[in-house]
Amino acid sequence: MRANPISTNLDFGRDGVQHGHLKLPHSHDGSAWGAIMIPITVAKRGDGPTLLLTGGNHGDEYEGPIALYALARSLEGQDFQGRVIIVPAMNFPAFKAGRRTSPIDGGNMNRLFPGKPDGTVTEKIADYFQQQLLPMADYVADIHSGGKTLNFLPFCGIHHLADSAQQARAQAAMEAFGAPYSVISLEMDPDGMYDTAAEAMGKVFISTELGGGGSASATTVAIAKRGLDNLLKHAGVFPGMPAPGDSQLLDMPDERCFVTSESSGLVEYCLDLGEAVSEGQTIALVYDLDRTGTAPQAYKSQIDGLFFGRHFPGLIAIGDPVGIIGVPP
Amino acid sequence: MRANPISTNLDFGRDGVQHGHLKLPHSHDGSAWGAIMIPITVAKRGDGPTLLLTGGNHGDEYEGPIALYALARSLEGQDFQGRVIIVPAMNFPAFKAGRRTSPIDGGNMNRLFPGKPDGTVTEKIADYFQQQLLPMADYVADIHSGGKTLNFLPFCGIHHLADSAQQARAQAAMEAFGAPYSVISLEMDPDGMYDTAAEAMGKVFISTELGGGGSASATTVAIAKRGLDNLLKHAGVFPGMPAPGDSQLLDMPDERCFVTSESSGLVEYCLDLGEAVSEGQTIALVYDLDRTGTAPQAYKSQIDGLFFGRHFPGLIAIGDPVGIIGVPP
Amino acid sequence: MRANPISTNLDFGRDGVQHGHLKLPHSHDGSAWGAIMIPITVAKRGDGPTLLLTGGNHGDEYEGPIALYALARSLEGQDFQGRVIIVPAMNFPAFKAGRRTSPIDGGNMNRLFPGKPDGTVTEKIADYFQQQLLPMADYVADIHSGGKTLNFLPFCGIHHLADSAQQARAQAAMEAFGAPYSVISLEMDPDGMYDTAAEAMGKVFISTELGGGGSASATTVAIAKRGLDNLLKHAGVFPGMPAPGDSQLLDMPDERCFVTSESSGLVEYCLDLGEAVSEGQTIALVYDLDRTGTAPQAYKSQIDGLFFGRHFPGLIAIGDPVGIIGVPP
Amino acid sequence: MRANPISTNLDFGRDGVQHGHLKLPHSHDGSAWGAIMIPITVAKRGDGPTLLLTGGNHGDEYEGPIALYALARSLEGQDFQGRVIIVPAMNFPAFKAGRRTSPIDGGNMNRLFPGKPDGTVTEKIADYFQQQLLPMADYVADIHSGGKTLNFLPFCGIHHLADSAQQARAQAAMEAFGAPYSVISLEMDPDGMYDTAAEAMGKVFISTELGGGGSASATTVAIAKRGLDNLLKHAGVFPGMPAPGDSQLLDMPDERCFVTSESSGLVEYCLDLGEAVSEGQTIALVYDLDRTGTAPQAYKSQIDGLFFGRHFPGLIAIGDPVGIIGVPP
Amino acid sequence: MRANPISTNLDFGRDGVQHGHLKLPHSHDGSAWGAIMIPITVAKRGDGPTLLLTGGNHGDEYEGPIALYALARSLEGQDFQGRVIIVPAMNFPAFKAGRRTSPIDGGNMNRLFPGKPDGTVTEKIADYFQQQLLPMADYVADIHSGGKTLNFLPFCGIHHLADSAQQARAQAAMEAFGAPYSVISLEMDPDGMYDTAAEAMGKVFISTELGGGGSASATTVAIAKRGLDNLLKHAGVFPGMPAPGDSQLLDMPDERCFVTSESSGLVEYCLDLGEAVSEGQTIALVYDLDRTGTAPQAYKSQIDGLFFGRHFPGLIAIGDPVGIIGVPP
Amino acid sequence: MRANPISTNLDFGRDGVQHGHLKLPHSHDGSAWGAIMIPITVAKRGDGPTLLLTGGNHGDEYEGPIALYALARSLEGQDFQGRVIIVPAMNFPAFKAGRRTSPIDGGNMNRLFPGKPDGTVTEKIADYFQQQLLPMADYVADIHSGGKTLNFLPFCGIHHLADSAQQARAQAAMEAFGAPYSVISLEMDPDGMYDTAAEAMGKVFISTELGGGGSASATTVAIAKRGLDNLLKHAGVFPGMPAPGDSQLLDMPDERCFVTSESSGLVEYCLDLGEAVSEGQTIALVYDLDRTGTAPQAYKSQIDGLFFGRHFPGLIAIGDPVGIIGVPP
Repeated sequence: MRANPISTNLDFGRDGVQHGHLKLPHSHDGSAWGAIMIPITVAKRGDGPTLLLTGGNHGDEYEGPIALYALARSLEGQDFQGRVIIVPAMNFPAFKAGRRTSPIDGGNMNRLFPGKPDGTVTEKIADYFQQQLLPMADYVADIHSGGKTLNFLPFCGIHHLADSAQQARAQAAMEAFGAPYSVISLEMDPDGMYDTAAEAMGKVFISTELGGGGSASATTVAIAKRGLDNLLKHAGVFPGMPAPGDSQLLDMPDERCFVTSESSGLVEYCLDLGEAVSEGQTIALVYDLDRTGTAPQAYKSQIDGLFFGRHFPGLIAIGDPVGIIGVPP
Repeated sequence: MRANPISTNLDFGRDGVQHGHLKLPHSHDGSAWGAIMIPITVAKRGDGPTLLLTGGNHGDEYEGPIALYALARSLEGQDFQGRVIIVPAMNFPAFKAGRRTSPIDGGNMNRLFPGKPDGTVTEKIADYFQQQLLPMADYVADIHSGGKTLNFLPFCGIHHLADSAQQARAQAAMEAFGAPYSVISLEMDPDGMYDTAAEAMGKVFISTELGGGGSASATTVAIAKRGLDNLLKHAGVFPGMPAPGDSQLLDMPDERCFVTSESSGLVEYCLDLGEAVSEGQTIALVYDLDRTGTAPQAYKSQIDGLFFGRHFPGLIAIGDPVGIIGVPP
Repeated sequence: MRANPISTNLDFGRDGVQHGHLKLPHSHDGSAWGAIMIPITVAKRGDGPTLLLTGGNHGDEYEGPIALYALARSLEGQDFQGRVIIVPAMNFPAFKAGRRTSPIDGGNMNRLFPGKPDGTVTEKIADYFQQQLLPMADYVADIHSGGKTLNFLPFCGIHHLADSAQQARAQAAMEAFGAPYSVISLEMDPDGMYDTAAEAMGKVFISTELGGGGSASATTVAIAKRGLDNLLKHAGVFPGMPAPGDSQLLDMPDERCFVTSESSGLVEYCLDLGEAVSEGQTIALVYDLDRTGTAPQAYKSQIDGLFFGRHFPGLIAIGDPVGIIGVPP
Repeated sequence: MRANPISTNLDFGRDGVQHGHLKLPHSHDGSAWGAIMIPITVAKRGDGPTLLLTGGNHGDEYEGPIALYALARSLEGQDFQGRVIIVPAMNFPAFKAGRRTSPIDGGNMNRLFPGKPDGTVTEKIADYFQQQLLPMADYVADIHSGGKTLNFLPFCGIHHLADSAQQARAQAAMEAFGAPYSVISLEMDPDGMYDTAAEAMGKVFISTELGGGGSASATTVAIAKRGLDNLLKHAGVFPGMPAPGDSQLLDMPDERCFVTSESSGLVEYCLDLGEAVSEGQTIALVYDLDRTGTAPQAYKSQIDGLFFGRHFPGLIAIGDPVGIIGVPP
Repeated sequence: MRANPISTNLDFGRDGVQHGHLKLPHSHDGSAWGAIMIPITVAKRGDGPTLLLTGGNHGDEYEGPIALYALARSLEGQDFQGRVIIVPAMNFPAFKAGRRTSPIDGGNMNRLFPGKPDGTVTEKIADYFQQQLLPMADYVADIHSGGKTLNFLPFCGIHHLADSAQQARAQAAMEAFGAPYSVISLEMDPDGMYDTAAEAMGKVFISTELGGGGSASATTVAIAKRGLDNLLKHAGVFPGMPAPGDSQLLDMPDERCFVTSESSGLVEYCLDLGEAVSEGQTIALVYDLDRTGTAPQAYKSQIDGLFFGRHFPGLIAIGDPVGIIGVPP
Repeated sequence: MRANPISTNLDFGRDGVQHGHLKLPHSHDGSAWGAIMIPITVAKRGDGPTLLLTGGNHGDEYEGPIALYALARSLEGQDFQGRVIIVPAMNFPAFKAGRRTSPIDGGNMNRLFPGKPDGTVTEKIADYFQQQLLPMADYVADIHSGGKTLNFLPFCGIHHLADSAQQARAQAAMEAFGAPYSVISLEMDPDGMYDTAAEAMGKVFISTELGGGGSASATTVAIAKRGLDNLLKHAGVFPGMPAPGDSQLLDMPDERCFVTSESSGLVEYCLDLGEAVSEGQTIALVYDLDRTGTAPQAYKSQIDGLFFGRHFPGLIAIGDPVGIIGVPP
């Protein structure tokens, strides 16, 4: 087994707040001996649990990176106990390019775990998390949003786990995070996810979707900041008690929650996220771009619930998700 | 002077609702004798004013196209008097590509008027509007939104015009449209705009910005649909009286309304559109992507007002607009 | 082993004619939760053999897709017994792009069997054929043509197989197909081919090359349609007897059948496909693009035979095939 | 007026056969002081008319370049009187790239006459023909084919001209050329064509379309070679009499000769070039790529005649020509 | 005439050292209301001549930008009299991209003077220099190098001018600059050059070529820094006397100084810059990439002189300059 | 295990000088049955050792290819004993494109050993060296230079090897080569290197870095030519004794020899290669491109030594090597 070539100038065992880089050598046409320099902060004070806090798993999701660059900077004067490891942009090449996936190898970070030490750039980063960072962590929070092509009501989520004690710890963390919505779901396609990697190691893992569209608002960033602060308090790293707001629990029980487009064109939404929807109600219309005067294709909800997530861009293609419906328990 | 090569299978003088195309021959590597087929609807019944209604002047703005494909389809059973010409996507190649500008020639339609009959594809389309469509119109409404890189509070706007009678007619049309916000501005850089072309012919011209981000919500589409319906009633083409909602008038008196980024990085907004802002208040912070632990650059408002428009994507570059502040009169 | 993520809304065991899709989730920058929707038709009536009929293994070959979209549509009113599975465009992303290989991953479908369930998009499709579709089939016909860069006399072909009974069944199917030319060849480089995968499972497998150039004529499409109709009759799925036309058998006994270019330039063919050629005869001349007045490079046949296949584009590169000579037995 | 920067090492007034280049300085990122070197041959012997023979006006049409590289090389030992100027690839950057238009500036040479001495690369070449080469010529033959996206029955064509004596001279040249088909047409859109530039100077101008698909066959190249040989004899430059074969005269009297696609998809032709077609007969079907089982769109001839030209690639888009019907007089 | 949209936050008439930007609004797909921010420094103290100092006319030439960023920063504590305007990277988009020409419009700045206020981005910048900056200047120095594709012995150059007094002033400035080599040349193709624009206004204009290859050495940067310091002293803006080193005068009397490649391949230079060369001596060999064992093409000097400039990359194309020979007077 | 598809028309066991190709079938959109034709020369006479001589391991390094095309051509008339195998451009697709890595698959040849017979194009080439060419060799010399993005003082290098006898043989070969500098280093990251593959087979392996910048000078090519001639004499294949010049031995003892950029911008070098440098001395300054008047970032040597290697382009990015310091023993 080859060794992962990533190195760092930080000492994970040293007390204090350190800002530095994960250095991944990357030989390419633009720099024969170049490197990818992934920002990282390690803050440690005495004993206590380790939190691994990440954003930019997909490079076009911004609430996580904003809250984490801000948190990293605030730690210097902060009272805390234990260790916080912050990587605000896991797929850093994707993040710098403003893209979901890496411009170097097309890698979707969240489908490439456990990674490979001698694989693509994205696989090398995943392997470093798998081999080096995840094993150090007690709590792992990975802050996602919808990215450029999806939009969601802001939620924190966990998975149904085989180990009920582990699931109870995750649920407690999710409740402490206190996003406006909370989701416990059965992951249908767990292969390659960071979530799966962390959960398989027995970590307390939570994730979020906090908006979307490739942008971030003051409102959604505030959810991320408060949620992370709550989690740090919940873990006992920050002093004080978490102060989660009200959170609406939602389920996505089966395939009926997902409406998929069978046509390509201009999409008109007939209701907005957060509105109630009933079975048979038209969610969206898709118009043929090439001619006026023809009937648009109507897409209807297959279930009663809350309009929870949608395709973001104005144009939609066959196979894209038209809408996701959440169901209050 | 060469002739514009655009032809159409529609008869602008005939009564009835016709759906067809503007056909622009376009010889390219993928089709030697190909053509660009721009959808157009002409609806005429008896005498009465002509309204020219357009969207997709920029190809990544969606409230206009959605409202206009819907309107074109609804006219068949509609009671009306006069003529309605609908081009839901002026820069059709840009619209099909989901881009602000044309993928063929990079043309920004709203900077290329009066166009050229033997110019680029975008200039030929502009010339066709200048020579053929605008002269037929009494009222012109061009529905814009912020597109993929800007976001605005939804407003309808007109320009200060030298001819006060023309300005009064435009103001009446804007008031009839009834967007949540209304803006009368002095265009600083009118060269090449469709607005300028229409105004110079003495037309009643209104424009809008109805959201942004390269997406559209049910809420913003409803503003477009209701505004167009109101305008058609105001012009006497549709029966009934316009029913505009309350509209807040805003000014952008001088350069202090515009805050420009002097750095490139990750942008955190400290308040959301629609919130009041005071002089000296921080609107946004810009973080260096390449390292944690450094101070972000703060951008402050130079004036008291309403936070009215912003950069949409999560990453910002030097020279991009951080925020636009509107000032109630 | 990870599971292949492709799902379908069709029921392969149900009687009737079903048109639907193979849905392959594909997360990319343009759609985070997007999917590739590969059209498929399944027609079943009672008991009988299963035919798996495919085109678009290479995305720029058109006789197969045309004949198969037409066949799929005609089955509704057709009298048949057994099962027909039609995938008119196996490498659907390549087919939509009009390219030999996938625009997503560059995958050449016919070099990636048996595929991988967690590989590239093209490998996932190959794996689905390997694991799901091929095992259901008794007869497999894969309709190829030369594509944008090759042109062939229209032939149906099979391979020399270790199992002589299997080869005899394939030869009977080829004879039933009844293309103008028939070829029994020894595949020199079988790794990764769909042919190899099907033959290794003991299926009756036939393939074709029915023209080329990235186009299709009424004549070559008629060969595909009649051949498929004949095959369906041969298998007893369609009623009636196959009516193959005369077919000329051809061999490609050794390396002398292949003439390779050793230069790059403009290629002039000295004879057309279907003409007899003798050893030492000049097939083509290659001119230097950069200057007039120099001697072109001449390429000669190394064998007596029939001019059977050629490079299609007007420009040729070193290593490209100048000509393929077939030898009547 | 700036001077055209093209220079040449050839002397147009000197007797003998000279092979050289038109040198067009071209400063670009790959070579600050680079140049485009366009091959040219000038052959002169004593007095007599000047023929300007060209190919590669569109870079993906090959009968002209092949016949002209061959002709240029054959002149050394040839008996002739007068002057022959050969530019086998007018749009040389397009020709080297195997594209209709220039990869440098996207220029379609045949839409950019009379060119500009300080314009784009393509405009500079056009200007050089306009200012330097065309004025020297008595006869001008520009050998076109359909290129990668069109296919034609092979014809030689001239335009209806205001000057009937000039038209008669062109008709005599066309008849001497002796292509299988001959067409006298009214150019609907003459702006920017090389044809128009030559005709406006009073030259005897003929053009061809000799096949297509971005390839050339021995048969179509033979038509080009024999036609040029005939023209040189007709002009008295080569000794002997032209020996044209039978040529079928065809008209394209009005818009009914052109059938345009109103949909995008996979195109199936129902008859081949050269077949008779009657009004109302289906020429082609266009299938939706995204699903099987739906009815294809049928395209029908609007006139009785001969199926004369068609779209070449297997995929077709809205606005593309489905078919061109020629009408025998 | 439209106005140039470039604005600046600097006051050219105010005493002091100001660092700021030329702001050019640039609406594109990545930022609808974006701008190009070109760095500029203006330093003024009392009365005295104005020097306009520029680099990055071509974006891949580095001695000028390095010397000018350094000079701009040093002016704060510097004793000077008069005005210095520094634009270290004229074609700023090209400079940021590390390319000779603009990535936005392909513009070669030094071929686009006098520019256009409503033209491309590059033309707008040229127009701003033409209309705003050049008129303010007494002395203009434009620091070039060979860029990525050329390499030169370091020289300062001026042109033969119709006005002998102006030429004498330029020669005095060139002599003060004191580069290792000095060249007085007749510009063969002056259209569109910044040089021509400045000279036509009667300015004292000098230019340089200080190395190449898209890199800069400490040695060549020192030549630029010392040369600019000398020029500022020569003009009386900096105190003290210029201290030019020895400079070798060179001529390029005619076309024989330029050896052009007639082939494409791998280039081997047989001597290095600065070596003496005699007529008939082989400068370089060009090898065919595609095969070993063939004779390379030899390129020979047509004149006695000094090997003065060459193609830099290891691969060369037809039309590229193999070598430039300078001739001592 | 699949077989490597590369074949050759050369016979490695036959006496004489043969020039030919390694033919690697490569099916792609531009040629369905195309091939990559890698030039190779094999010269054999009687018994004696085999030398495998390569260049173009990275495609933008030119001293190796120039010296080896020249050597291949010179062997015909040369007196020698044994066998010489020359592949002047290992990564031939990269070499033809003038890039470090392959334009087909992005492959960096020197990170892909031992290759894969059914992998990417680059991996297939590596596998052919691993399985076919390396086993035949006694001595292996791989001629590198810095390429487009690095520049080095010219050196020949070997690695510290576990087998001291093998290392002694390599050192003797390095001393015979006689480059101006010689380096014995401990390879920190040997995975995937050609060096490692050759050394693991017990071959005498030497490598070089002979300049850089993507260019070659007469001086550096002479070092390559003389070094190869010396090596051939040292091995006893060429008659005579090696005549190495003086060579300075250098070490790179630890991480202090490498200075890495932590910022992106315009780089000014404060000294040139070959100059002595002391600990704490500033090697280079990096300027912010976006504004004048700010302090550049200074990069200092961490050790006393010789300035030995540097980043070549004028722009530098975070993670790029600023400088490499060699330490005389």
